[in-house]
Amino acid sequence: MRRGARFLRVAVLGVGLIGGSIGLAARRRAHAEVCGYDPDPEVLARALALGAIDTAAADLSAALAGAQVAFVATPVGALAETVRAALAAAGTDCVLSDVGSTKRAVADAGADQRFVGGHPLAGAETAGVEHAREDLFDGATWYLTPGPGTSGVLYERLHRLLASIGARPTAIDPETHDRLMACVSHLPHVLANLLVTQAASLLGEAEPRRLPAVGPSFRDATRVAGANTAIWTDIYMSNRDALIAGIDELAARLQEVRGWLLEGQAPAVAAWNDRARADRDALLGSGLAGGAVIELRASVPNRPGVIAEIALALGHAGVNIVDMALSPSEDNSQGVVAFWIRGDDHAERARGLIAGLGFPVVQA
Amino acid sequence: MRRGARFLRVAVLGVGLIGGSIGLAARRRAHAEVCGYDPDPEVLARALALGAIDTAAADLSAALAGAQVAFVATPVGALAETVRAALAAAGTDCVLSDVGSTKRAVADAGADQRFVGGHPLAGAETAGVEHAREDLFDGATWYLTPGPGTSGVLYERLHRLLASIGARPTAIDPETHDRLMACVSHLPHVLANLLVTQAASLLGEAEPRRLPAVGPSFRDATRVAGANTAIWTDIYMSNRDALIAGIDELAARLQEVRGWLLEGQAPAVAAWNDRARADRDALLGSGLAGGAVIELRASVPNRPGVIAEIALALGHAGVNIVDMALSPSEDNSQGVVAFWIRGDDHAERARGLIAGLGFPVVQA
Repeated sequence: MRRGARFLRVAVLGVGLIGGSIGLAARRRAHAEVCGYDPDPEVLARALALGAIDTAAADLSAALAGAQVAFVATPVGALAETVRAALAAAGTDCVLSDVGSTKRAVADAGADQRFVGGHPLAGAETAGVEHAREDLFDGATWYLTPGPGTSGVLYERLHRLLASIGARPTAIDPETHDRLMACVSHLPHVLANLLVTQAASLLGEAEPRRLPAVGPSFRDATRVAGANTAIWTDIYMSNRDALIAGIDELAARLQEVRGWLLEGQAPAVAAWNDRARADRDALLGSGLAGGAVIELRASVPNRPGVIAEIALALGHAGVNIVDMALSPSEDNSQGVVAFWIRGDDHAERARGLIAGLGFPVVQA
Repeated sequence: MRRGARFLRVAVLGVGLIGGSIGLAARRRAHAEVCGYDPDPEVLARALALGAIDTAAADLSAALAGAQVAFVATPVGALAETVRAALAAAGTDCVLSDVGSTKRAVADAGADQRFVGGHPLAGAETAGVEHAREDLFDGATWYLTPGPGTSGVLYERLHRLLASIGARPTAIDPETHDRLMACVSHLPHVLANLLVTQAASLLGEAEPRRLPAVGPSFRDATRVAGANTAIWTDIYMSNRDALIAGIDELAARLQEVRGWLLEGQAPAVAAWNDRARADRDALLGSGLAGGAVIELRASVPNRPGVIAEIALALGHAGVNIVDMALSPSEDNSQGVVAFWIRGDDHAERARGLIAGLGFPVVQA
């Protein structure tokens, strides 16, 4: 049953940019009551003064008392430990998530039916509750990594809260998430660092070492070079095995190109360049699927993991769940999940995928 | 002696974006008379209609008849051959340059006292005389690669024409130029291609392969992926040994970072990231040297290579020559070169460098 949203109680553990923005958005857009905790009393007082939280808690347990949704929004290095502590302190009806940029590390810490790993693709690089904004997550992908034991009821509650604050929750498994982030975020940062250092060493003999006004490609490729060291060292280290795998793949591809250059194989270089253009168009090309929002209703058994299984299948296929709602049957043995999907083609694909998982599904 | 600029005769061989823009700027800003030639008669007619050239020549020799400055602005693949043909056809008082993005290839073809390799850092990626603009080179670095035998008189004429059309001519040796371009342009393009292909292969199982709204680092790093294949295959192939050297250096640096990640050496990663930030600040940081323009006068023997030697020394030290003028003595055995340098510190550095080369120099 749809719970009155006005009284949703949200706990935010760590009230920096992300935690503060969650608080602001949850209060103003989801009419939630937000209790915050931060180990730094000054930060906590500022979050309260800025209206990012309704109340400031004295410790983690006090913040979690009565919470129905809780977010761990500490720096990456403290995430796993805080998730463990929060799971020990939170009630049985509290869904707990985090906002870390890597997900396998917390997957172990959060092996609990109440835990769903999370990662909003917004605002990662600056810090400070002063920059918190109600609209920080508008239109932003918010990855969720439900585990096989995740409670469907709790997953749905988290998904709906995130959608109501403007984000686009998208389920993904932790391994794919971390490999994807290694490739599209961490590796570009590594390469930006390497390119500036290589150019600086090339110009190192001359003084000053200023680069002439080169074309935009170098500026673009190195814009993130030397990003916040504390944050990025944490990120690199917490995702280091996926990043190493990404580096190894890149190194192998680099050797392939080197070989074509060495052997003067212009046609191979041309074909590779054409392929890159096609790949870029496919990855970053035209806008999102448009069209009307269509409601699908699936009947599912009431056991952990079912909602996560469907959400992951849809996320993997690139189908965005605009909203979802779960209605248990009276005897609580099964339930109906409603999924709202935008666009006929995506709705049709979702219907096929859900049916393929063995669950009866109809268009409402 | 300063020649009346109004009657400078300029030949442009290849009237695409770059050649057309040279023509427009030379006509409107240097009051030059511009004769153009292009193997494609339609392109040539369009250049004439757009006012990029005063007259259209029937062939390369006709375009060069009476020219005092000539630019080879063909695609990279045809540069060396066209430079050779142009040197055979041009008169003894014609300075010939090119606009190719790599410089060692034409250095051999242009081993002639009339030849100075060139590379404007502007407008490289689009094509077509329709996009030609008078202000395309405003403030753009325009690399010049004079050889040891380059005539000082001819170098000065080219330098002054380029400065008068808005560019910042900067002398550099061909090897350093090509290594620099490999690092700051060609390697970023290679990495952009590799990153999109790697991300696409990661997402390849799902349909559609659209990337979610990731952070800006991936977009920035891959903006040039799959750039114009014809142009970029030529560029990659013409600079392939410098590019291979750049790839090898990057691969070695990548392995270094991989080692720190593998061994969990967070302090090394943090120090590396800090170094990258310092390098980026040094390379791309605060604006150009300001201050008043100061005139230096150097007495030099009238022999080939002297002007090139001074220009290269200043270019290597990061000192920009705003303008220059050459005045031979009456018996033509020696001359005075005036250099205009912006800023006290750069002027002082220039004075030290010129004196260090053994030429008497005073501030005018």
